[in-house]
This record gives sequence, C-alpha cells and structure tokens, in this order.
Amino acid sequence: MTTGVRRRMGVEERRQQLIGVALELFSRRSPDEVSIDEIASRAGISRPLVYHYFPGKLSLYEAALRRAAEDLASRFEEPQEGALGSRLRRVMARFFDFVDAHGPGFAALMRGGPAVGSSATNQLIDSVRQAAYDQMLSHMGVTDPVPARLELVVRSWISLVESTALIWLDGRRLPREELEAQLVQDFAALAAVAAARDGELAALLREMLRNEPGDGPFTDLTVRLIALAGP
Amino acid sequence: MTTGVRRRMGVEERRQQLIGVALELFSRRSPDEVSIDEIASRAGISRPLVYHYFPGKLSLYEAALRRAAEDLASRFEEPQEGALGSRLRRVMARFFDFVDAHGPGFAALMRGGPAVGSSATNQLIDSVRQAAYDQMLSHMGVTDPVPARLELVVRSWISLVESTALIWLDGRRLPREELEAQLVQDFAALAAVAAARDGELAALLREMLRNEPGDGPFTDLTVRLIALAGP
Repeated sequence: MTTGVRRRMGVEERRQQLIGVALELFSRRSPDEVSIDEIASRAGISRPLVYHYFPGKLSLYEAALRRAAEDLASRFEEPQEGALGSRLRRVMARFFDFVDAHGPGFAALMRGGPAVGSSATNQLIDSVRQAAYDQMLSHMGVTDPVPARLELVVRSWISLVESTALIWLDGRRLPREELEAQLVQDFAALAAVAAARDGELAALLREMLRNEPGDGPFTDLTVRLIALAGP
Repeated sequence: MTTGVRRRMGVEERRQQLIGVALELFSRRSPDEVSIDEIASRAGISRPLVYHYFPGKLSLYEAALRRAAEDLASRFEEPQEGALGSRLRRVMARFFDFVDAHGPGFAALMRGGPAVGSSATNQLIDSVRQAAYDQMLSHMGVTDPVPARLELVVRSWISLVESTALIWLDGRRLPREELEAQLVQDFAALAAVAAARDGELAALLREMLRNEPGDGPFTDLTVRLIALAGP
C-alpha cells in the first residue's frame, strides 16, 4: 500500500470517529445543546480540525443522523420464519432498544424544530419509515400494487409506533416491554378495523390469525377483545 | 368615538384581512411557495404596507397558523350528550372538513421543514394536540390525575388521526367518510388493547360500550371484530 492510500483511510477513520462521538452526544441532548467545542474535546482534536472534516455542526449532525437512520432501519429486518406476531415482537424490542439508547436525540428529532427540521433530516426520517413499511409488507407477503387500505394500516401503525415511543420517553411511566407487546396487538387491532370494510384485507388477516400460535400476541388479543365485548 | 380609536380599529381590521388572505394562500401551498408580493396583491395593498403590519413572511405565517390552530382546536368541542361514538364521529367529520380545506398547508406544516419547523409553529401544533386531548378526557369523564395507560391511548390515537389525515391527503384514494368512521373505531380498538392490561381502563371501556346504541360505531366494531376472530 502506498502512503497516499493509508492517508486517505486515515481521513475516513477520523470522519467515522467524529460521527460516533457526535451521535453519542446528539443522542443524549438536543442538537441545540451540543457544541462543536464539546465534540472536538471528546474526540481529542482541535476545533479547527473538526471543521476540516465537517463544514459545520449541521453537516456533522446530518452525518450522525444518517448512521442512526441506517441502524434503525436495519432493526426492522427480521427472518421470515415463525409466527408474524413473534417476528413483530422482536422488531419492537429492537426498536425500543434504539429509542432507549438515543432517547433525547430521538425526541428532539421527531418533535422537529429549527435545529433539526431541515429537508435533509426529514428525508432521512422518511427513508426509515419507508424501510419499516417495506419490511412490514414483505413479512405479510404482499407485493405491488399495495391495496390502499392496507397501505394506510401499515403506514399509520408505523406513526403509532413513533408516537408511542415519544410518549414513553416523556417520563417512562410504563414498562417498555408492555408497550412492545401492545404495539404488536395494536397492529392486529387496526388491521381488524380496516378489514371490516375490505374483503381482501379480511382474508389476509384471517390467514395471519390462522398461522398464529394459541399463546401468541395476536390470539391473546382476539381472546381479550371478545371477553371485553361480552356481557 | 375619536379619530384615534377609529384608526386603531382600522389597523386591526387590516391585520385580520391580511391574516385571512395569507391563511387562504398558505392553505393551498407550502409556505416556501407563497410570496409577500402575492399576499399584497391579493389584499389590494402595496408590499411595503404589508411589512408595516407584519415584519416578515414568518410572522404573517405564524399569525395565519394561530388562526387556523384556534379554528382546529374549536372543532374538537362537542356537546357532552348522546353516545360517545356519535360525538367522536361528528368531531372527526369537522376535523376532515378542516384538513380538506387546508390540505397542502396542513401537510407542509405537519411534515415540518425549514420554513415551518420553528419553535413557535411547533408550540401551536402542540396546543391543538393538547386541546384535542383535554376534550377527549372531558368526554370520557376523566379528571386528573389521568392514568398513564389512558393518557397513552388518547395521545397516540390523536397522532393516528393526524397521520391518517396526511396519508389521505396524499392522493385521496379512500373516501374520507370511511376514514372518519374508521378512526372512531380505531379509538375503541386501541383502548381495548390497552384495557387488556389495565382493570381501571377495562371498566371505563365497558361502561362506554354499555352506553352505546346497538347501531353505533363502537358496537358495530365489536361485532365485526368478533366475526373476524371466529372460525
């Protein structure tokens, strides 16, 4: 290897180190509360050297966000084996691991505001939502064109997952394991409501319930809904 | 009345006229696509005169947004009479009237971005969410302290209403009346899922269902959920 190649790798390594330091700080506090000085100090380099790699705080924030977005999107990937309810339950556990680790930064990002509401950050958020949406459809065995009612159920459930996580972060008054299980059941419940108006969706949901084990979260939900509706 | 008083009223009238013109334009397009020149021209005054009343586009946008927020918050007000499902159905119809009238502006606002993601606009959005939340609790007859699981159900349902409206606006592929009815049933479904883990919430929900008419949206939902879960 030539010196030139080694020096270029050094640049990329330094960038990755700075992104890691920034992500850690941006996870614990909102972007407004993190300074380039602090990032430089944590990385053990000078402030001007940080600017050598990233032109400003926003570009470093966006790079950190890109890494977080890739991480988050990957958590929706899950082998297509076993009951759908159990797969979703594992995805929700990994999602809450992420929310737990990046709490204040996640909240600041999702709540928007001057420091975070750029079109680049909005595009990153949308890319994660789209990755989650694609994964959900793939697990349900649905291919294009996606029926409008199913698209609504999946996309609105993803927003329910986001808002539930944000409410959880605000005081953590409920156990996250309960919310993980609840969100899986919420998906079945929202799908059931929509399926009442859509024969195709109803058939898909019946098939999903048929493949669920007797002690899985979907069956549990159905049993409980019936009990609640009883006399 | 003195001339001074009359002139001061003139100022307020002019401000209100400008806010009305701005709201109409901001409702149909995103803030980036609306110019002060266009607002001035629509209001029949000069561009400098607009700046006399509002220092810039952002302050006019925020004033228009404040009026829209007050309008939207008022749509969640509903006499506390009759079945809860029917009350919610009327609230949803008024909410979709608003979304229908202010579509592109509503979408631009809720999706965030550089022109709209200021802390003032975020505070206005939160104030509408809080008004909707307070109205819901009031209709359910719940007072402070609100149990954590009920708070989660109501707040996360409000976010579901928002995201459903945004998805509807993106192509309007489903009839809005269907979504209005579906959101009422979604509320019952989300409450039912949470109630499975909370005796207090279950008792409240049973009471709600007991007061519903046989042909109301909640009873309809329950019947459909049971049919779907059947063999």
